[in-house]
Amino acid sequence: MFRTAVRVRHLLTLRTLYPTIRFQPRCSRPLVPLSVGRSMHSWSSEIVHHGEFPERTHTCGELNMKENGKPVVLCGWAQAVRSISNDLLFIPLRDAYGTTQLVFRTENCSSSSAADALREKINALTPESVVCIKGTVRSRPEGMTNKELKTGEIEVEVNDVLCLNTAATNLPFLPGKQKMPKEEVRMKHRYLDLRRPELQRNIRTRSVVASTIRNYLNDNQFVEVETPVLFKSTPEGAREYVVPTRNRGQFYALPQSPQQHKQMLMAAGIDRYYQIARCFRDEDLRADRQPEFTQIDLEMSFVKAKDIQNIIEGMVSAIWKKALDVSLSKNDFPHMTYNEAMSKYGSDKPDIRFDMHINDISKQLPTSAHSGVLECMVVKNGAALKTSDVRAVLQEYESQNGDVNKLHSIKITEKTRDSWLSKCLITRQDPNVSASQNGLNEELQVEQGDLVYIHQRPKYLYGGNTALGRVRLHMSRLLQEANALSISPNDYKFLWIESFPLFTPDEAGIRTWQATHHPFTAPYPEDLPLLESAPAKVRGQHYDLVLNGMEIGGGSIRIHYPELQRFIFDKVLELQPFEYKRFDHLLEALAGGCPPHGGIALGFDRLMSIICGTPSIRDVIAFPKAGGGKDLVVDSPSELTPSQLAEYGLELKK
Amino acid sequence: MFRTAVRVRHLLTLRTLYPTIRFQPRCSRPLVPLSVGRSMHSWSSEIVHHGEFPERTHTCGELNMKENGKPVVLCGWAQAVRSISNDLLFIPLRDAYGTTQLVFRTENCSSSSAADALREKINALTPESVVCIKGTVRSRPEGMTNKELKTGEIEVEVNDVLCLNTAATNLPFLPGKQKMPKEEVRMKHRYLDLRRPELQRNIRTRSVVASTIRNYLNDNQFVEVETPVLFKSTPEGAREYVVPTRNRGQFYALPQSPQQHKQMLMAAGIDRYYQIARCFRDEDLRADRQPEFTQIDLEMSFVKAKDIQNIIEGMVSAIWKKALDVSLSKNDFPHMTYNEAMSKYGSDKPDIRFDMHINDISKQLPTSAHSGVLECMVVKNGAALKTSDVRAVLQEYESQNGDVNKLHSIKITEKTRDSWLSKCLITRQDPNVSASQNGLNEELQVEQGDLVYIHQRPKYLYGGNTALGRVRLHMSRLLQEANALSISPNDYKFLWIESFPLFTPDEAGIRTWQATHHPFTAPYPEDLPLLESAPAKVRGQHYDLVLNGMEIGGGSIRIHYPELQRFIFDKVLELQPFEYKRFDHLLEALAGGCPPHGGIALGFDRLMSIICGTPSIRDVIAFPKAGGGKDLVVDSPSELTPSQLAEYGLELKK
Repeated sequence: MFRTAVRVRHLLTLRTLYPTIRFQPRCSRPLVPLSVGRSMHSWSSEIVHHGEFPERTHTCGELNMKENGKPVVLCGWAQAVRSISNDLLFIPLRDAYGTTQLVFRTENCSSSSAADALREKINALTPESVVCIKGTVRSRPEGMTNKELKTGEIEVEVNDVLCLNTAATNLPFLPGKQKMPKEEVRMKHRYLDLRRPELQRNIRTRSVVASTIRNYLNDNQFVEVETPVLFKSTPEGAREYVVPTRNRGQFYALPQSPQQHKQMLMAAGIDRYYQIARCFRDEDLRADRQPEFTQIDLEMSFVKAKDIQNIIEGMVSAIWKKALDVSLSKNDFPHMTYNEAMSKYGSDKPDIRFDMHINDISKQLPTSAHSGVLECMVVKNGAALKTSDVRAVLQEYESQNGDVNKLHSIKITEKTRDSWLSKCLITRQDPNVSASQNGLNEELQVEQGDLVYIHQRPKYLYGGNTALGRVRLHMSRLLQEANALSISPNDYKFLWIESFPLFTPDEAGIRTWQATHHPFTAPYPEDLPLLESAPAKVRGQHYDLVLNGMEIGGGSIRIHYPELQRFIFDKVLELQPFEYKRFDHLLEALAGGCPPHGGIALGFDRLMSIICGTPSIRDVIAFPKAGGGKDLVVDSPSELTPSQLAEYGLELKK
Repeated sequence: MFRTAVRVRHLLTLRTLYPTIRFQPRCSRPLVPLSVGRSMHSWSSEIVHHGEFPERTHTCGELNMKENGKPVVLCGWAQAVRSISNDLLFIPLRDAYGTTQLVFRTENCSSSSAADALREKINALTPESVVCIKGTVRSRPEGMTNKELKTGEIEVEVNDVLCLNTAATNLPFLPGKQKMPKEEVRMKHRYLDLRRPELQRNIRTRSVVASTIRNYLNDNQFVEVETPVLFKSTPEGAREYVVPTRNRGQFYALPQSPQQHKQMLMAAGIDRYYQIARCFRDEDLRADRQPEFTQIDLEMSFVKAKDIQNIIEGMVSAIWKKALDVSLSKNDFPHMTYNEAMSKYGSDKPDIRFDMHINDISKQLPTSAHSGVLECMVVKNGAALKTSDVRAVLQEYESQNGDVNKLHSIKITEKTRDSWLSKCLITRQDPNVSASQNGLNEELQVEQGDLVYIHQRPKYLYGGNTALGRVRLHMSRLLQEANALSISPNDYKFLWIESFPLFTPDEAGIRTWQATHHPFTAPYPEDLPLLESAPAKVRGQHYDLVLNGMEIGGGSIRIHYPELQRFIFDKVLELQPFEYKRFDHLLEALAGGCPPHGGIALGFDRLMSIICGTPSIRDVIAFPKAGGGKDLVVDSPSELTPSQLAEYGLELKK
């Protein structure tokens, strides 16, 4: 004990006296080696030399005092050598499992020449070089333990070092550094970025979650089936990728989802199907989309919506338990209709981690509601927000909706508390204003310091959100920034949204109606008589799973009656025969004896991003595409030669 | 007992008296329903009617005497109704788990009108219609049990039938029939074909094997990582599929394997990676290839070949145990060098379920060997084969090799047993003929009734097989057909083939050498000095796993030294700088600190085909492509419109 204590003090003194001496690398291997680089003899003898490197006994994340005194072999990436003195060097060694402190001490070497040889090897290590070391586990000197490190109780005294691969000295960045370069650089050198513990954790957690999903579904008698990636091109497949063949003029297309194949599997008697499936969508790559993405896809026969929801609730609970150690129960998956979600939260994927409800006050003020709905939303403590921020919200509304006369906000002060209805442009001329003021104040608990929104919207609800729904989200962000609303990152609020309208007006104006989700979703049986008379009122057996305001999955009970499917293609969606001809195989499968069935798909990338708490789905994908669909690692997409194109019977259009 | 016995006898009499009355379907739903079909009212009321079908209590494969007397709800596909009399109908009900015999008896109905109603419903069932039935489990009448059926002890007395979907009456075939239509018809209507128990078993076994693989690898600390499907086009990627983007002239390509990405994952510190990965190869679709196929892909860092082989042996053993209940041990995976395999079996994937060795007899007859190798193969009992068959083998050799003077066969009769060497065209002038004859007879155990081949081959071995190796396989087929050789279908003979030559002469003649496997395979360190002087002699650290004469997997220790990789690209394979520029990201990853690593890939489709004992890999793929890469289900590949093409900046070449 005495010796150790002295040595530590000595060390600390040295550290204080001398600034850390940075290692100057001796080997100057370039990042992309030129053939005129090191001589063949020099590298080939290195390879022969370390051809028989010893087997590692431990990872860099597991040694502790239990192994004190034991000889070990470790493999990993050397971090920058910290040279305290000629007789004392520290080398942190990192692998995917952690970091272990290696130490060189002249005094521990068998001879002075042995010490010189070993010191030279260590000093030649460039950061990120791959090494295999033999050493002995030692407890760290008193006062030097690092409780934040799994291996912080020990260090490993190096007896021998074998450099298995010297890292180039011109690496674009070091993955251990606090300050990282911009994402584009990190994506180009993804192999370096992935060495960071955060990305290692994300990629490894993804694997654990995938295996949890599969085991859960296998235990529930699901069958994993691989469906084709080389699929069929569709005439209106605006967002698909096509794949030319060497048969001139003949193309495959990549699937946007395994929808048709999984329905055919139901007709085929695979009554519980699943797949963690790669899907493809060629869209303008907005914020956080990828041209290829992964979905957890499943389908079941002879079931109702609740059966599928039960499976998903069980699956999500298994994932949350495994990945986050959070226990979920049936009560954590409440249900809400589309109409309630849109009326109360102004969104078909409401974030219910905070209240801020939208209230229908048309009954109180029918004149102001006109033929629509008069909504009121109270933003608690909203009066404290910056006027410029609040104004920006109104401006955004104006730019999106044109008519600013339908949305109004009023700050509630001591003065306005009992008169805000009569100050609001929309309601002030309503004959009921005075009569309603007190009742509304009480019902909505309007208080001084609040911000109140009044909005006049059309009665018919469709689409993903309402103006007040967008304002609600905007306000929640502003309130969080102002510390007036707090949402815990560990708060997970799931919600099933159901009873969507089966059809939505076709805003492109080409047809009257479009399928709200996809044309295979079954209507509520009791709404069938409305199909011809009032398509807008037909509810679909569709359900979305929402988490914290994000849609993480969506599914439906499908149409299994060919006549109904054909009727919807033909009469409601007004597809031309040539357009639905390409669904003949599906209609055939339905007519060939297809059971009632339904399913769901969850976005795996988004799910992982939520579980890992990452700002982008790129952080949970090993090799994501950057903006514009570019793969910066391999520099793709790229050009083809005219002769390559000719093999597919193609040429570039002039 | 008395009543039952009487009834059975009555039944048997009826059966004998009347031929089975075939049901004539009343509903004539066409396979693809026209919109002018049944009225909306008729089908929509059906849907409303069965909207609330009851939950099934059992599958059709599980009921036995334990459930005798119990009320059950079953769902499944009705088979053809067998009407014994107006009062007795049998309906086999099939689902993915088995078949249950349903029975209707007038005497069990509550009233005569109830009987009439139920009988009418049953008689309206077309084969393959989807039904949900309520019934009661009954033991089968004495003498009627079917021991071959899991549910053969019982029948289910039908109390109510709900037809959930009436199958069309013009189905192209019925999946239960013994005589099936040709494969093309079955592939077009895959949803019907997949209902057959054989295909159900294959697809479900595939899922079980996939899960066995994943669990085994997860238990061994492997991380499942998804690598990109939208990859980079390569200038010489003759066999790749390209994917145009909307960015004119810019293309992705589909990967032929995740090779480069998995190596980058090693550089990234994911030290045990795996993936069951979809891969793509645009080749002339020979016999049993698919344009998209699945491979079990893995890679490990800080390992030697034996570590990877141990993992695969463990994995294959787990699969064989789970899927076939066969226990394998270390001894079931012997090793053989490429040279031994090629010399002794004439193949780099020898089928060692039968002997028929090739023997090097150059020592005995050096003159006949010339500068090459003189080989002799004894086909036991081969003299009994048809002369025309044996001649066909020689003709095939001639057509492939031109020079018929190098291969000769002699039937061993009483007369030729002691003189065949001097009758053989190749050896008869050899001065050692007489001296060698007896010794060879003894060494090779040549007996009357054998067929002996003599072959003169070049010394240098490369490629996948030798002429005598091909003859060996041909002979084994002929002998099996003639019942002179028997190979059990449950005989599984694994074999590791190692020490392949790293380079093979480029027969296209463009370059001197090509990589025998791929350019990333590492040479044996001790062979490095030969890289410049004698590339033909450099052995690669490559290993193939062979099963019963088929290659089921191949892998290698990779090059992890950028200088060595560059040297091989540049000096040995003579790639032009623009050709290896596209590997810059890989060279960068090696130079950025890449550990020694290696891996392997197993063909999952082939593996499943062997496990399921199917003649084609198409039988273990849910939706395989037919000849020419055609997807007959969805009719793909198909044409694009000029305006679709224009979106990708393309047009068809005139």
